[in-house]
Amino acid sequence: MNGAESLVHSLLNSGVDTCFANPGTSEMHFVAALDRIPGMRCVLGLAEGVVTGCADGYWRISDKPAATLLHCGPGLANGLSNLHNAMRARSGIVNIVGDQATHHRPLDAPLTADTEGWARPVSAWVRTARSAATVGHDGAVAVQAARTPPGQIATLILPADTAWDEGGEVADTLPVPASPQVAPNIVEQIARVLREGRRTLIMVGGLGLREAGLEAAHRIASATGARLLAQQSNARIARGRGRAPIERMPYPVDAARGVTAGVEVVILAGARRPVAFFAYPGKPSYLFPEDAAVHVLTRPEQDTVDALVKLADAIVAPQAAVPDAGPRSEPAQGKPEPERVARTLAAVMPEQAIVAEEAVSFGRGFFRYTHAAPPHDWLQITGGAIGCGFPLATGAAIAAPGRRVISLEADGSAMYTVQALWTQARERLDITTIVFANRKYAILLGELANVGANPGRTALDMMDLGNPDLDWVRIASGMGVEGARAETCEQLADLLGSSFRRSGPFLIELLI
Amino acid sequence: MNGAESLVHSLLNSGVDTCFANPGTSEMHFVAALDRIPGMRCVLGLAEGVVTGCADGYWRISDKPAATLLHCGPGLANGLSNLHNAMRARSGIVNIVGDQATHHRPLDAPLTADTEGWARPVSAWVRTARSAATVGHDGAVAVQAARTPPGQIATLILPADTAWDEGGEVADTLPVPASPQVAPNIVEQIARVLREGRRTLIMVGGLGLREAGLEAAHRIASATGARLLAQQSNARIARGRGRAPIERMPYPVDAARGVTAGVEVVILAGARRPVAFFAYPGKPSYLFPEDAAVHVLTRPEQDTVDALVKLADAIVAPQAAVPDAGPRSEPAQGKPEPERVARTLAAVMPEQAIVAEEAVSFGRGFFRYTHAAPPHDWLQITGGAIGCGFPLATGAAIAAPGRRVISLEADGSAMYTVQALWTQARERLDITTIVFANRKYAILLGELANVGANPGRTALDMMDLGNPDLDWVRIASGMGVEGARAETCEQLADLLGSSFRRSGPFLIELLI
Repeated sequence: MNGAESLVHSLLNSGVDTCFANPGTSEMHFVAALDRIPGMRCVLGLAEGVVTGCADGYWRISDKPAATLLHCGPGLANGLSNLHNAMRARSGIVNIVGDQATHHRPLDAPLTADTEGWARPVSAWVRTARSAATVGHDGAVAVQAARTPPGQIATLILPADTAWDEGGEVADTLPVPASPQVAPNIVEQIARVLREGRRTLIMVGGLGLREAGLEAAHRIASATGARLLAQQSNARIARGRGRAPIERMPYPVDAARGVTAGVEVVILAGARRPVAFFAYPGKPSYLFPEDAAVHVLTRPEQDTVDALVKLADAIVAPQAAVPDAGPRSEPAQGKPEPERVARTLAAVMPEQAIVAEEAVSFGRGFFRYTHAAPPHDWLQITGGAIGCGFPLATGAAIAAPGRRVISLEADGSAMYTVQALWTQARERLDITTIVFANRKYAILLGELANVGANPGRTALDMMDLGNPDLDWVRIASGMGVEGARAETCEQLADLLGSSFRRSGPFLIELLI
Repeated sequence: MNGAESLVHSLLNSGVDTCFANPGTSEMHFVAALDRIPGMRCVLGLAEGVVTGCADGYWRISDKPAATLLHCGPGLANGLSNLHNAMRARSGIVNIVGDQATHHRPLDAPLTADTEGWARPVSAWVRTARSAATVGHDGAVAVQAARTPPGQIATLILPADTAWDEGGEVADTLPVPASPQVAPNIVEQIARVLREGRRTLIMVGGLGLREAGLEAAHRIASATGARLLAQQSNARIARGRGRAPIERMPYPVDAARGVTAGVEVVILAGARRPVAFFAYPGKPSYLFPEDAAVHVLTRPEQDTVDALVKLADAIVAPQAAVPDAGPRSEPAQGKPEPERVARTLAAVMPEQAIVAEEAVSFGRGFFRYTHAAPPHDWLQITGGAIGCGFPLATGAAIAAPGRRVISLEADGSAMYTVQALWTQARERLDITTIVFANRKYAILLGELANVGANPGRTALDMMDLGNPDLDWVRIASGMGVEGARAETCEQLADLLGSSFRRSGPFLIELLI
């Protein structure tokens, strides 16, 4: 048995059965091993940002790590920005990077690069395999690292000779540590704070945004009057009818400070101290009053659901009914504006849909108007590195056959990883994509206005995706995904409805 | 004057007047400055690999650095693989990366990343600007570093506040060191070696592959019987009628060792010791006999043209006429096979064309059959990080208005930076693209066969770009580039000819 075969067996033993791949020459023994050993689903991406973004989406829906397969340092580099998003989402990924053979690396052949150096900033764990005899064990440790709560990126670099040499040994699965639970004195201390009745904001993050966490948070809020808020960008939120609603921190600094004005106490439950996405001249960096007291109920790696339940019990909060979300909206009519698009989406969305949202500026208004939709999960871009939407949707669809994935994409962001459409077509995934075509980097026009500049030709050209206009229906068709254009909410509703009734991917270019 | 304005003025003072950009929020003050200060041509790329690959192509043709403008660590990350290629090409680039404001960085907002850490492996020079007062000087030093022979990547990281703060100071251009010249005793020593008459291989690289270097190398070879060879992948080679011909080292290890069998002396003239692109079980890493004596005439940063001329003079080599390249070929007929495609290309190629080649496996045969074409420059993927072809062609076209650029692209590689087509359309660049559509990662099928594996369904699926087939004419059209499909050499010749007579980009999908 060669090293590659021992690695594939070890990954399967540890429960990793899906591999998103863009292989090259140095990975051929690994590919040959995947061929010989049944049990691993291999999904090809035509660019590495697709591969890593898929692995992120897969984890967020399945809570299981997938493996990637990337080609040398530059292949890893192409996947780094979506690994950055995955790191911010705290997704577990077994990130496998093939590389030059150990004896060949010192000769600095053209594709040789600092693979470890590039991997380290996004990885909680990095290891370069030393030999075929140990690479199986390395794989098991990588899976253990990837599954260590809340989820981590574990990068295993695989020099070609550690794959091709004989003497591979298969490793068994290794135990994964549980999420550390909150200490009782912390619960008591925060319960005391809550009883003081000061104006309190509870920032909920991580698994706290799944159904059970939201339910406990809702009990606490109902009993104390504390306000619940999620971060602006979250890996996954359980939403829709019957789920406790939660708003998100607004993106613009002024709006965020408006929402948190007067807050005296901030409690962090699996969330981080809320900070502005970017700094602006003369504006604060923190999104809450500087004199507010900050209490940490749980850090992201701790068990936030357990802590929220214990905190609700400690303050003897009764069960709290989820407030009625109101009637499900009707499809909107006319020109597509954010609120109307959200209402239309809420009106036609199927049960248990997964929404992968990277709609950037146009999408900020969607969240509020979709609460009365059927239960669904909402995934967001977490690290601000645009180009995660298509791959997230793709990976989520691989993880959840039978659930409709709705991919909400701004046209600017969509271009970064447009290659994902081909993977959607090849794997015949049930993904309905809406590309919001304003033919601009609209967010930047707003930011440039914030700078106080009156944009001239040069600046406008740098934010304009027109001249020529992108034709998304043709681009999608060129990659095997059928599509159509919509200019009104009625057309959007019709196309959404028909896409939900068919299998496989469909793309709607919505002119906004 | 703010820092951004001082930086733009300083770049212009230092002769940098072209900026390939994919900006974000943290670059808005820089964009606003570009707007207010005339003189900088700004070219938008819809993904960062396009931006950095354009800057590489621009340098290779103009011998002048362009600036990039990238957005934070993840924006840089997306551009790293083409920076890797540029580093291997020894291209000079002023790589500007906007970043979080200095006071905001410690708060670890979502987009915050290890920008310096990611930049370092591809950069000869990295600096994070400290203040608006010094960023103009930083810019001048960055240009100096980029232009230091043979050309280097200089990464200037620009925290947003160093751009927006007042107090910017404009810097003058800084002197650029000349290429160090070869020492006389080295020339004498190598002249003695040549006179010994052993079987000698001269590896020529860098500027040695421009017209003057090839001419001197040809004199030496004609006088001594030494064999000339270029590396397998080169930044730029002057080719066509009237230029001294040079073959390249073959890619397959066995073929390369066949070519160098019996070589007793290897002389490196701006080239590196030739090594295999990848290691293979049981095959050597070096591409020449282990017992050959290696002599370094010039390292890549030295003046190779001067050294070759001095060496030719030292051995009293007479002027040597360039051998006749034979008749210019006729367009080929029938099914497109590599040799026929090359002949067709040679038959119709206009004077002073620039060929940007990333044709991978299909393209290995092109080189030999195009020597009788009119004078042209040939650019290649130098670092093995596929996805450089479209951007190289785009940057070359920006650098050389009036010259036709011919972009030879394998379909697999083309997908990585497909977004470059849009930039070609927007800038109305005279680029004729041929996408060689074999609907496979053909190189990998060959490599898998080398591994001895009999590929099964899983492996074949990982190397197959069909199911669904990519439709390059639609993809190009979706990005504003007109195109057509060809299935024969006659159709190819017709489409090439008509594309050369029009202005702007055109794409030919050649089914092979």
